[in-house]
Amino acid sequence: MTKPKGFEKPVGVRDYLPYAVDKLRAIEQNVLDCMSRWGYRQIMTPTMEFYDTVGVASSTSDQKLFKLLNNRGTTLVLRSDMTSPIARVVSSLLKEEPLPIRLSYHANVFRAFEEEAGREAEFFQTGLELVGDDSPEADAEVVALAIASLKAAGVTSFKIAMGHVGFLNGLFEEVLAGGVHEQQMLKQHLLDRNYVGFRKAIRELELTISDSQRQELEAILRLRGGKEICDQAMALSEHELARSSINHLCKVWEVLEAYGVSEHVLIDLTMIGDFSYYTGMTFEGYAAEIGFPVCSGGRYDNLLRQFGRDVPATGFALKTNRILDGIHGNVEEVVRPVLIRYNAANRKKGLERAGELRSRGLAVVTRLIQDGGAVPAEADGLYDRVEDFF
Amino acid sequence: MTKPKGFEKPVGVRDYLPYAVDKLRAIEQNVLDCMSRWGYRQIMTPTMEFYDTVGVASSTSDQKLFKLLNNRGTTLVLRSDMTSPIARVVSSLLKEEPLPIRLSYHANVFRAFEEEAGREAEFFQTGLELVGDDSPEADAEVVALAIASLKAAGVTSFKIAMGHVGFLNGLFEEVLAGGVHEQQMLKQHLLDRNYVGFRKAIRELELTISDSQRQELEAILRLRGGKEICDQAMALSEHELARSSINHLCKVWEVLEAYGVSEHVLIDLTMIGDFSYYTGMTFEGYAAEIGFPVCSGGRYDNLLRQFGRDVPATGFALKTNRILDGIHGNVEEVVRPVLIRYNAANRKKGLERAGELRSRGLAVVTRLIQDGGAVPAEADGLYDRVEDFF
Repeated sequence: MTKPKGFEKPVGVRDYLPYAVDKLRAIEQNVLDCMSRWGYRQIMTPTMEFYDTVGVASSTSDQKLFKLLNNRGTTLVLRSDMTSPIARVVSSLLKEEPLPIRLSYHANVFRAFEEEAGREAEFFQTGLELVGDDSPEADAEVVALAIASLKAAGVTSFKIAMGHVGFLNGLFEEVLAGGVHEQQMLKQHLLDRNYVGFRKAIRELELTISDSQRQELEAILRLRGGKEICDQAMALSEHELARSSINHLCKVWEVLEAYGVSEHVLIDLTMIGDFSYYTGMTFEGYAAEIGFPVCSGGRYDNLLRQFGRDVPATGFALKTNRILDGIHGNVEEVVRPVLIRYNAANRKKGLERAGELRSRGLAVVTRLIQDGGAVPAEADGLYDRVEDFF
Repeated sequence: MTKPKGFEKPVGVRDYLPYAVDKLRAIEQNVLDCMSRWGYRQIMTPTMEFYDTVGVASSTSDQKLFKLLNNRGTTLVLRSDMTSPIARVVSSLLKEEPLPIRLSYHANVFRAFEEEAGREAEFFQTGLELVGDDSPEADAEVVALAIASLKAAGVTSFKIAMGHVGFLNGLFEEVLAGGVHEQQMLKQHLLDRNYVGFRKAIRELELTISDSQRQELEAILRLRGGKEICDQAMALSEHELARSSINHLCKVWEVLEAYGVSEHVLIDLTMIGDFSYYTGMTFEGYAAEIGFPVCSGGRYDNLLRQFGRDVPATGFALKTNRILDGIHGNVEEVVRPVLIRYNAANRKKGLERAGELRSRGLAVVTRLIQDGGAVPAEADGLYDRVEDFF
């Protein structure tokens, strides 16, 4: 192991130079402002949490958590998302707050990826949680606000794919009752979006299922489209959980129509969400200009129970870094400062002038020119103008 | 070791509820805006850095660094300040940037304190670095901007104590030549502001020094006041470093007078700064309403060399958390949202009205009232007004 050189930084983390910071800050501010207009208020939680509480409750697999020890020898983690920390706060500091609770955040989160993957170990999420409301209305609010947030972030062309984990769980139980391993394997194929593998796995299933059941499973792959998907899915399963899930999704769609945003939404029942804690509706956002999902969210009705407050919740997070890298951004032209130069005799005059311009909101850089020293020519484009006090 | 309970978080870290976040964000924004009017542009660096580079170069003692291992088994640290990371960036990404470079930041930093101390393990700093200028003008700019930043943060009554590590180093070398241990001990007393201990240590010094030399050392404690302190200090030492340091400090004072801010500044030659990397002028800010320093800064001309770019630098950081907790804040009254209630038949009308109010910048919360369900009385003070669509 060679020692890192002075100018090096760890793999998977990055520096943001001023232009990128301006762009990131603009996204952050615009999205948080948008969320606040929907009644969401911002909270902040610590970077470090207990492994045994937030670490274990988070959806991040153990080997992807950054762990460290505190002075007492207790294992801490760097937060891997904001959903679990907010669940902790809602169950402690906000325990007496009436429901529903609407909270937003902008935070850096951490994942210990294998280095080869070239993924980021620290990145930003801008998101929200709506706690204490299990209605389709609440899920639709969160999806509609995800759409508004993407627009506020400057993403112009995107689609939201919306599914429901209950539908797949119900259908699988109906057709593959007892085949826990088979269910897991098929879900993994869907999570990986490996549809060839999914089809192959269905053909090779060693459980005794009928041909029509095999066709039922294969039909899942076609359950992507508009509102009509709800009807097709209803025809596919008699299972109560599957049907109530579709029913819920239909109602969410209705509310999204009332919001006037259903044009942005596709129903995709092959989508099961990245996160083991989702219990209901899940969704992901895809932008034309960006190759990865730009947001993801869903309902997680069992998480808060682990922190001692048994209430339902739904929410989403924008993948702010991907948006930052993928969009052109709406940061205005970099403001160039005024340069004020003065010699020692006119220092007071020069600095007073600088103060005056600053109080008017202008950016000003000042410079002493030594008496007898040459007054340099300034590089083009650095300053808006130069004012001399000699 | 008992397992932490679900609602617990590690010692020394905190949650910020919406009101505190609003206040913190207002301080952050006002201070960064102020800095940008002086030509400072914001940068961001990763939370994790290599122990062997930024960790070792930072002024934080080894046992106060939070350490963790990455997948390769290399030791990382959570950054303990922003000065070393910025030195790394100036020596790498900004290597070709013409000097001087002006950079600002708002960042969380980490220190592993003993738990008993009740100090924060994660806290915020808002600060800046002026790189590539070793003149008194540069030091004065940084002090004047610290004053402007404290005002921007809402701190109304404060003093800046300004010293110079060169003066003490020179005087000690002159009087205690060879007594490295004794010099260290006396400095520690000054750092601890233990003046009784300092006097006692001088009386008990085992080096052969004359009575007048003992008086010289004791006289240091009186070197706190206005501009006249420069003259008194000049009279005290013949040592070249001590004299050139005082000379520099006099010039800084002159520039501060030209800025019109010297009324906020005291010269305090007993101040040596918390940080082992300071090489010249150092300063701390004290606020009437807050019991701890609210900012600290100084010149560190040897730090950047460790990262491969040998240039001088000066800067400061506001201790943002202390300001947050200490000041009343200038956050406006919490904006209460409009509540829009609707039944299923009027959903579209209600949500359209919500969209309309939001596009005018108002905060709006919406709620479906089930047909046949009771329309509840709303708690006082939660909403600006209620609009019903039934």
